[in-house]
Amino acid sequence: MTFPVEGRRAVVVGTGLVGASLGMALRRQGWHVTGRDCDQRRAHRALALGALDVVGDDPDAELTFVATPVGAVAAEAATALKGGGVVTDVGSVKGSIVQAVDHPRFVGGHPMAGSEQEGLDGADADLFSGAVWALTPVEGTEAGAHSLVRSVVTSLGAEVLELTPEHHDVLVAVVSHVPHLTAATLMGLAAGRAQEHRALLRLAAGGFRDMTRVAAGHPGIWPDICVENRQAIVELLDQLEQALSAMREMVASGDRRGLLAALEHARTARTSLPVRAAGHGNLVEVRVPVPDRPGVLAEITTLATELGVNICDLEIAHSTEGDAGVLILVVEAGPAGALCAALASRGYHPAARSLP
Amino acid sequence: MTFPVEGRRAVVVGTGLVGASLGMALRRQGWHVTGRDCDQRRAHRALALGALDVVGDDPDAELTFVATPVGAVAAEAATALKGGGVVTDVGSVKGSIVQAVDHPRFVGGHPMAGSEQEGLDGADADLFSGAVWALTPVEGTEAGAHSLVRSVVTSLGAEVLELTPEHHDVLVAVVSHVPHLTAATLMGLAAGRAQEHRALLRLAAGGFRDMTRVAAGHPGIWPDICVENRQAIVELLDQLEQALSAMREMVASGDRRGLLAALEHARTARTSLPVRAAGHGNLVEVRVPVPDRPGVLAEITTLATELGVNICDLEIAHSTEGDAGVLILVVEAGPAGALCAALASRGYHPAARSLP
Repeated sequence: MTFPVEGRRAVVVGTGLVGASLGMALRRQGWHVTGRDCDQRRAHRALALGALDVVGDDPDAELTFVATPVGAVAAEAATALKGGGVVTDVGSVKGSIVQAVDHPRFVGGHPMAGSEQEGLDGADADLFSGAVWALTPVEGTEAGAHSLVRSVVTSLGAEVLELTPEHHDVLVAVVSHVPHLTAATLMGLAAGRAQEHRALLRLAAGGFRDMTRVAAGHPGIWPDICVENRQAIVELLDQLEQALSAMREMVASGDRRGLLAALEHARTARTSLPVRAAGHGNLVEVRVPVPDRPGVLAEITTLATELGVNICDLEIAHSTEGDAGVLILVVEAGPAGALCAALASRGYHPAARSLP
Repeated sequence: MTFPVEGRRAVVVGTGLVGASLGMALRRQGWHVTGRDCDQRRAHRALALGALDVVGDDPDAELTFVATPVGAVAAEAATALKGGGVVTDVGSVKGSIVQAVDHPRFVGGHPMAGSEQEGLDGADADLFSGAVWALTPVEGTEAGAHSLVRSVVTSLGAEVLELTPEHHDVLVAVVSHVPHLTAATLMGLAAGRAQEHRALLRLAAGGFRDMTRVAAGHPGIWPDICVENRQAIVELLDQLEQALSAMREMVASGDRRGLLAALEHARTARTSLPVRAAGHGNLVEVRVPVPDRPGVLAEITTLATELGVNICDLEIAHSTEGDAGVLILVVEAGPAGALCAALASRGYHPAARSLP
């Protein structure tokens, strides 16, 4: 969706991956974008990449996006609010920020479109296309401010999800913060067995690699996130410890039935995780058992391209027991049959099911 | 490596993914392979797929692979040992099995080449090529039995890793069993918040999907594994709880420095996980920030194929904060420069580093 935005002016504070992508996306629609960063070189790099019209400030801009690390958001938002425009942010924690800023022209926001890569290199005007973007307006938020942020974010291709700041924080603790800390903890446990390190790492198969991969990300953003969202994280870590304790008791007592029930429950829940392309029409999930070799992936994606099959989603499901896996493709229902036939003729054994 | 095996005879007991793949790999080398399964139809399906020469038993075979679920291995091994041949298995737990079988002609084994998919569809004569295969001979094991299993397994392309049964069990608890139970527990926690399910799942980004993906696997094999390896798993779950508790205390007390140190430690360890192609010559890791869209993956793998670049390893690193990610390719050092140049000319920003 595009609409006339001639003469509309926005500011981006913090020109990392998200800030620069915002600048690119807004400029593509015709906005005039001013940007700044505590690191002057980074601001100028964003300018050179086409993410900004100019480096500096624009107190009269209609809309300011604060895209700094979480710990700096409240102060930057307060500065921006001295102008007359609307201010929003992209921080991963909302409760403490919304409370600290406490202003009718501030709307808390959080696009689920960050990256392991904190730098500018991944900046992309399409970063928000199809991404979920949480907004957390509160009672004191001006209706006009809320609807402005909502319409601009929607125009960037994002799907808005409205939540209270507190509810947002609990949910991201569940799906992001606690999983991240858990991945790091698992990796730390494995790394702690230094004297048998080599054997251990040779035994680490695809599933372990999948589970700990986020732990390879830059840790810089996490101390701020943990401190700002400490209440929800601590509560969730307590729940995780209790749940692991229950799992431990089942293992210790040899409760096969209980273990099977817990794993079946998790399986059902994981299998119903919505694919990213959900809601985009009739889709079919094609599962192809494959040896986890990159050549196989290239062969199958190339085959799909040749057949004109648009792959809406792609995952490689490893087990924790080895490197063989299942390639999971989500494709449009129309050409799915042709893809399955082509795969079968090359010796693969695809299984297809319609997605609800 | 192949060598004359005319007239050599093997038996495969249990013709699921691993058993059928074993049959295919052995037959390709000229072995005569007899196989059976408690499910007759599955045995005949394996025969039809070319994994067996004949369905049945062969008490005089030189070598028997017991490839049944863990709980059935000891009994099947005892039966097979009534013949005069050597017997090995492929179970995920070794201590309890080796102790129960307790025979000089039995050598415990565990190829790290299983799959989420328990069925025959993924069976592949190359399944073990490059895979790590743990062997757990003990004091009473005949040297001839040990060297036979070792040479056959090596001839299938696997890399042998020798461990005591107990050490094996602790290490797989660290890299497989406890991570699997943790993934299921995290998924269960998320699924437990039923009234906010939809919002939660919309916020679940690539990192959460990566961490919980193994939980989508068939749970059938896990109760046996948990019971057979209960000692190591319980001990490790206790250590995980302690480590999570320490993480919780750092969050609760706002210990930014401690959190950063723990995450840096995990990052270093994860970054040094060996790539699967390690030891195969001069390799370069190319990191490409990408929006996590399947079209991008197809474009890049196709480009590599066109340039004749052999991709030795491929991962997509998501963060827990969104669906953007970093595509990590491991390629031979020679053509890496050409690949990076081609990627750059298409607007990507690849970064390359030599692997140690």
